[in-house]
Amino acid sequence: MHVTLPDGKQLDLPQGATALDAARAIGPRLAQDALAATANGDLVDLLTPLPEGANITLITKKNPADAAAVFRHSLGHVMSQAVGEFYRARGHGPEAVKRGVGPAIENGWYQDFDLPEPLREEDLPEIERLMRDILSRNLDFSRREVSKQEALAQFPHDPYKQELIRELPEDEAITLYQQGDYVDLCRGPHFPNTGKLPGAFKLMSTSGAYWRGNEKNPILQRIYGVAFATQKELDEYLQKLEEAKRRDHRKLGRELELFLIDPLVGKGLPMWLPNGTILRDELTRFLREQQFQRDYQGVVTPNIGNLDLFRTSGHYPYYAESQFEPLTVDEEQYMLKPMNCPFHVRIYASKPRSYRDLPVRLAEFGTVYRYEMSGELNGLTRVRGFTQDDAHIFARPDQLKKEFLDVLDLTVLVLKTFGMNDVRFRVGVRDPESDKYVGDPAQWDVAERQIIEAVEEVGLPYTIEPGDAAFYGPKLDFVVKDVLGREWQLGTIQVDYNLPERFDIAYTGEDGQEHRPVMIHRAPFGSLERFVGILIEHYGGDFPFWLAPRQIMIIPIADRHNAYAETLANELGAAGLRAEVDDSNNRMNAKVRSAELHKIPVMLIVGDQEEAQREVSVRERTPEGHKERKGVAFPDLMAELQERYRTRA
Amino acid sequence: MHVTLPDGKQLDLPQGATALDAARAIGPRLAQDALAATANGDLVDLLTPLPEGANITLITKKNPADAAAVFRHSLGHVMSQAVGEFYRARGHGPEAVKRGVGPAIENGWYQDFDLPEPLREEDLPEIERLMRDILSRNLDFSRREVSKQEALAQFPHDPYKQELIRELPEDEAITLYQQGDYVDLCRGPHFPNTGKLPGAFKLMSTSGAYWRGNEKNPILQRIYGVAFATQKELDEYLQKLEEAKRRDHRKLGRELELFLIDPLVGKGLPMWLPNGTILRDELTRFLREQQFQRDYQGVVTPNIGNLDLFRTSGHYPYYAESQFEPLTVDEEQYMLKPMNCPFHVRIYASKPRSYRDLPVRLAEFGTVYRYEMSGELNGLTRVRGFTQDDAHIFARPDQLKKEFLDVLDLTVLVLKTFGMNDVRFRVGVRDPESDKYVGDPAQWDVAERQIIEAVEEVGLPYTIEPGDAAFYGPKLDFVVKDVLGREWQLGTIQVDYNLPERFDIAYTGEDGQEHRPVMIHRAPFGSLERFVGILIEHYGGDFPFWLAPRQIMIIPIADRHNAYAETLANELGAAGLRAEVDDSNNRMNAKVRSAELHKIPVMLIVGDQEEAQREVSVRERTPEGHKERKGVAFPDLMAELQERYRTRA
Repeated sequence: MHVTLPDGKQLDLPQGATALDAARAIGPRLAQDALAATANGDLVDLLTPLPEGANITLITKKNPADAAAVFRHSLGHVMSQAVGEFYRARGHGPEAVKRGVGPAIENGWYQDFDLPEPLREEDLPEIERLMRDILSRNLDFSRREVSKQEALAQFPHDPYKQELIRELPEDEAITLYQQGDYVDLCRGPHFPNTGKLPGAFKLMSTSGAYWRGNEKNPILQRIYGVAFATQKELDEYLQKLEEAKRRDHRKLGRELELFLIDPLVGKGLPMWLPNGTILRDELTRFLREQQFQRDYQGVVTPNIGNLDLFRTSGHYPYYAESQFEPLTVDEEQYMLKPMNCPFHVRIYASKPRSYRDLPVRLAEFGTVYRYEMSGELNGLTRVRGFTQDDAHIFARPDQLKKEFLDVLDLTVLVLKTFGMNDVRFRVGVRDPESDKYVGDPAQWDVAERQIIEAVEEVGLPYTIEPGDAAFYGPKLDFVVKDVLGREWQLGTIQVDYNLPERFDIAYTGEDGQEHRPVMIHRAPFGSLERFVGILIEHYGGDFPFWLAPRQIMIIPIADRHNAYAETLANELGAAGLRAEVDDSNNRMNAKVRSAELHKIPVMLIVGDQEEAQREVSVRERTPEGHKERKGVAFPDLMAELQERYRTRA
Repeated sequence: MHVTLPDGKQLDLPQGATALDAARAIGPRLAQDALAATANGDLVDLLTPLPEGANITLITKKNPADAAAVFRHSLGHVMSQAVGEFYRARGHGPEAVKRGVGPAIENGWYQDFDLPEPLREEDLPEIERLMRDILSRNLDFSRREVSKQEALAQFPHDPYKQELIRELPEDEAITLYQQGDYVDLCRGPHFPNTGKLPGAFKLMSTSGAYWRGNEKNPILQRIYGVAFATQKELDEYLQKLEEAKRRDHRKLGRELELFLIDPLVGKGLPMWLPNGTILRDELTRFLREQQFQRDYQGVVTPNIGNLDLFRTSGHYPYYAESQFEPLTVDEEQYMLKPMNCPFHVRIYASKPRSYRDLPVRLAEFGTVYRYEMSGELNGLTRVRGFTQDDAHIFARPDQLKKEFLDVLDLTVLVLKTFGMNDVRFRVGVRDPESDKYVGDPAQWDVAERQIIEAVEEVGLPYTIEPGDAAFYGPKLDFVVKDVLGREWQLGTIQVDYNLPERFDIAYTGEDGQEHRPVMIHRAPFGSLERFVGILIEHYGGDFPFWLAPRQIMIIPIADRHNAYAETLANELGAAGLRAEVDDSNNRMNAKVRSAELHKIPVMLIVGDQEEAQREVSVRERTPEGHKERKGVAFPDLMAELQERYRTRA
């Protein structure tokens, strides 16, 4: 047989040769350094026969990260071996530890166990120590193919392995991997030797998991680990994880009293606490102002609608599995609205429209309800009820590009306002092979071209994704990267030829004839819930001044300055700013710490000097820490803060 | 027998004497002038025997309005007679017209008929003419008591009368009234003579009505009439009716494009069109500002809630008949929220509260859903989904009066802002006889006293209504009179001892012990839907400048002034004002008429002179008509309008 190397060179090898054989054929140094390989793009280990004619590359210790999935899997086996040794050292027989599955996952692996006694979180360092010991033993991984009978005989006391093996097809080769005295049923691939595995790993946590994910089965104990090619990568990962935990919007939401999810009120139904409501109102006010300048018109529609409305729009029964069940009222059926669009279409249709009236831009902060499985719910980012910053633009086909550009412009402005500068667009166009699309193909051609032209004009990175269009029109998704490098898909801009058709809406053209308008659906935030959830994590709770629910804390140095502090708070309040006085009995330093803990961006400290001069000392949060200014004239400061609030600096 | 006159004088009369006998006993002039009487406060006619020992007053032509219910009933009989004559004149036999019931109602009467051929609206003047003819015949009304057999024999061809008579108890006297040849089954009372009936009447309309209100019965034709003691009163009534029709919020809502009720969207579920949304937003902004100044905190809660929440609050199943049915989600039941209060209580309960934190004032523009029968729905004033300007104040008992006063103050400010100066309060206190009330009677005593003291301090008229308290606390309703003199009950202020108890909420007192707070429910508008409905009628669509959805129409005299007009519109828009340009091809006068028709309060007319000087000519609506100012410098005008907008003048 032969295999092809990346430089095009062919190697002739004996039948059944492995990647290790290939490495040896090139040279002993490579055979020594090789860790794994790819064959036709798939990761393989050095122990498995290569397919005839494969294109192969060898992965060596120069680039171990390329084989991360392999060493993570091998570390899973090492952990499994270590767990066995842990329990043997505590007097249990080798058959006492039974094992479910143990795959490599993103950043690491997990392994399920049925243990003679539960492993505690405190035991994880000891397991890690045993793992490092196994690495130091330089055990070779070996691979062998066995019959089903042999495989069953290998694990006589492990009912989970027995169940898995019995379900394997009769005619398929079953493989076992072994390092030291540890044998596991496994398809591989693995590293050649435990000594070559990276030491940059860490056991993270344990949790319960039903055998095969079925809650009728016994519950096993799952242990999670993470591993990287280098300690640096592991440290960065752990630090990022710490940071993500610190910024978790559910944690900050509780600490900063932004929102509340109460089981008595309902799953996936956040209630906005006073501080969160301010955030929400500031976002709403910001977008409303933008929309007013761009000639959007506000509308308000109910949270329920006749089922016939959703039958006409096609949302029912098409999306029924993500909706709440209909409810009966008199002889009619109604449904919690999953979408605002059918309502806006009916408003469009409620009077005759001329080509001169278009575009009509109807905007609504509309609260919609969609069914999500309770296990999928997560804080503000996955909920059952949320408010979309929704709008629908009804345009003539010749206005599509201009409207699309304006929406893009607004979207980019919104994202930049929140410091989300790392944005990319995904333009979803038709799959050329499919005929599932409604509407005139010539119109689609124009629309797709116009969207791409519009995105080009904006000048931000984009990709074209064939097949990602909805059946009713091309679309554009925007994806932002937050400060932790995590990508979030925010709203979409969606062209729609379908709803105008289904509701049979029209405008009178310059020719006096009826024409069909095209619709654009758009929501720059996506939903207020999800956007605020992302914002909380993006800012880590340190909101800019204009957004901060609590903007200004006035700290009197002594009780005798309380009255002056109150006067300032009232003046700031009358100017529409959010100011409080900390008149507790705490000392000044404790008051400063408390304000920092509550992430209040501006502190005004007032004592004898300040009061006498009608001044304040200002302590402000900055990205680097904080900045202090003493003896600032209060009217100047107030003007400065008002300006900062007004301009959303 | 004897009767007593208003001055305390007693009259001795023969057994079975009538009010006419009493009048005759006083003097022939009074007997001549008497129209009806009251006996022990009830209206009676001159033909019915008076009860022994009654206190009587005689109603004469000097004060015929006191007997309005009597002459309206008599005019019903006259109309019934006229309808008979109308059909006889068209060749139908006397038995062809059959009659259902015909009571006096507010301002008039109605009578149901089963007619040989339908009466058309156009026939009403002829019926009126026949009625006036019957009045001129000076027919005496007579009354006689008959047996059931005699009564049945009187109406052999009328199945409705037969049915009614058969259901009367055997031992009760049945009375018939007769004028001329017209006889009807009737309990009275009636005027003595058709010549004494007022001519100030009018037949208004006809409609279908099921016999006995049951839709399984035949449908009868109902004719409505109105009547007053004097023509002046009738004219005023008709004019008020015209005015009410002109101001009907459903009509103006359509014409001014404020809202839309669309059967495909749902019954009783108004959609707010762009103009209406502006109204709604202005109201919201106004109240939000007030609430910010008064230290309310905004919250947002979902439109559905777990049924257990409403079981805890007692709203379910207690008010189940006015709620939508529950819906099942996974293994739980949820309900469209009929009230916001349980959510706010849960927010209060979500963290520990100290006596220093109280009062906590949680405000939400919360959209709630309540079931109303479809026949009861009416425009914006009776709907199935509406947004309450809701707030709940959690206070210590010692804070109740101050909080109540502040709410009253806010309420009065709201009403005065909308020119609703004719306000009265109804204070609902306990029925001293009942024991249905929850909570400590001593607390109730204090609360009732404090509410009354608070109302006293406000200095507006009020009444105390024993038995009008809710079972959970005393309350205050406010009733306003609109420009047409119609009374509207707006929101209520409600003290609540029950929800704090049911949700077991507390605060830590100065003594370190847990105490129960008291709640106040309040909503100055009541609901945005109902309040806007009332506002539309109150203003007749002529909203003050700050509220007007369309504030400013700029009218270029010729096309060459369009660009200047656009510049002004943009400047006004950038200042947050709502300005449009009428650049249609119409002549200036037509443009002015169109702006008046759309009730736009300010018109700016611009021509050569204005453009050259950067001026405008201003035409404004005033209560008297309109006011014009020529050559106003645009910057001055803009400052003036901004100030008017800001101060809600």
